[in-house]
Amino acid sequence: MPSSSVKAVINHLLKNDRFSSWLGIEVLEVSEGSCKISMTIRDEMMNGFNIAHGGIAFAFADSALAIASNGYNKLSVALETSMTFTSPVKSGDILMASADEISLTNKIGVYQILITNQDEVTIGFFKGTVYRTTKTLLES
Amino acid sequence: MPSSSVKAVINHLLKNDRFSSWLGIEVLEVSEGSCKISMTIRDEMMNGFNIAHGGIAFAFADSALAIASNGYNKLSVALETSMTFTSPVKSGDILMASADEISLTNKIGVYQILITNQDEVTIGFFKGTVYRTTKTLLES
Amino acid sequence: MPSSSVKAVINHLLKNDRFSSWLGIEVLEVSEGSCKISMTIRDEMMNGFNIAHGGIAFAFADSALAIASNGYNKLSVALETSMTFTSPVKSGDILMASADEISLTNKIGVYQILITNQDEVTIGFFKGTVYRTTKTLLES
Amino acid sequence: MPSSSVKAVINHLLKNDRFSSWLGIEVLEVSEGSCKISMTIRDEMMNGFNIAHGGIAFAFADSALAIASNGYNKLSVALETSMTFTSPVKSGDILMASADEISLTNKIGVYQILITNQDEVTIGFFKGTVYRTTKTLLES
Repeated sequence: MPSSSVKAVINHLLKNDRFSSWLGIEVLEVSEGSCKISMTIRDEMMNGFNIAHGGIAFAFADSALAIASNGYNKLSVALETSMTFTSPVKSGDILMASADEISLTNKIGVYQILITNQDEVTIGFFKGTVYRTTKTLLES
Repeated sequence: MPSSSVKAVINHLLKNDRFSSWLGIEVLEVSEGSCKISMTIRDEMMNGFNIAHGGIAFAFADSALAIASNGYNKLSVALETSMTFTSPVKSGDILMASADEISLTNKIGVYQILITNQDEVTIGFFKGTVYRTTKTLLES
Repeated sequence: MPSSSVKAVINHLLKNDRFSSWLGIEVLEVSEGSCKISMTIRDEMMNGFNIAHGGIAFAFADSALAIASNGYNKLSVALETSMTFTSPVKSGDILMASADEISLTNKIGVYQILITNQDEVTIGFFKGTVYRTTKTLLES
Repeated sequence: MPSSSVKAVINHLLKNDRFSSWLGIEVLEVSEGSCKISMTIRDEMMNGFNIAHGGIAFAFADSALAIASNGYNKLSVALETSMTFTSPVKSGDILMASADEISLTNKIGVYQILITNQDEVTIGFFKGTVYRTTKTLLES
């Protein structure tokens, strides 16, 4: 698909994604199978140890997975995800997620996502597998 | 530790956990190495497909991991997590997470967490590994 | 399916499974979605630290995944697997794997497998997701 | 460490690794935190579907994890591993594993390993987390 079509699909996907809005996700780059996104960590995302709750970095990576895998305009849902936490995240940190496609078949897509902070420290590494349905997101 | 001490440690942990508060997590049962918790899914937790964002069920499981693993009053942080998504979650659903310990050594704890909804449908299955530090949460 | 049919499917599956034969896998119990299997660890399975190579316990769990998921006579292949190693395995150890179904849909099955040794120590914990094809293993 | 020392550590590691010998692993490149290795798939590695047993590709990746993580001469053991299977492996295939370090702290190392065949098709993607002990492999 042309780059403008991929962007239209992802805009449609994110327009109604209320939790990605709450997270404050911004899309920096997107193409079929990959994306770069960013977000800024806020106080209300902290856990009881005064670092970001693990669910925040995971949700950020999971949004990157949705954006990278749905750009083909073929509705794709996460089956299996794993995340390694490598460094704590603090309030005010600016996170960047970079999603790349490892493998793509008609039914299954596999993606890796690296999450770094403003100091280019890796804070997490995510692997996700999606099931690709036969539905479209936008009619062509 | 006596049950009252485990509860005191977990109350201390959750008192300052702002994101678990946002999620609306309630602790139903807790002991060293296990817990049962619940939460209710709200509209603001939806993704662009009008089902709960994957980060919500993950965050819920990750809170269960923190509660089950920190009850020993030995500060424990997630190293590695994985989650299988087995059924979609909708607004208004009431989720229950049940966390059990698979293995515990001085440095490492391993937990499985089953997430079900109000109809007892399994919506996700989580495995988490924590690193156990030498710090305490509450002074004895 | 009747229990005898499940056993016929699994016998057919294992008859030609040369690597499971090399491992020395014995099926103790099998039904649709679950199984118990055992094997004995040999010197040639050791790694450079004189404990069993991680691939051995993984392969044992992966065979349990195949046995538990293929008992429906619907050819099922592993998509995603994860394994936590909780205790070392030595030559002469007798391992037991117990596989249980977490979730089953038309296309996807999810299984957990606990691996213990002869002293009932947990040596690994495995989670596996299979894709269920439309092919059968045995004609009915 | 100088490159010759890393090689000496890895030679020592592999010298007594009987299962990696059975697999037929050859080390093409090694440095602290990374490696490239290869192996050839044989008939006795097949499963009941006449493709390589999942434990074979996993074991190959797990050996790559050991080689990449132990090159620092700091004994490192796998805690947590996951593997996505993306394409079947057949007898006669020549596999290549490429291991890269995602994160390294005093206690924990995280690695990703891509496995491809002779046609440069990705057949699996592995993520592994090791615990780094205070023991050395070779005395300096």
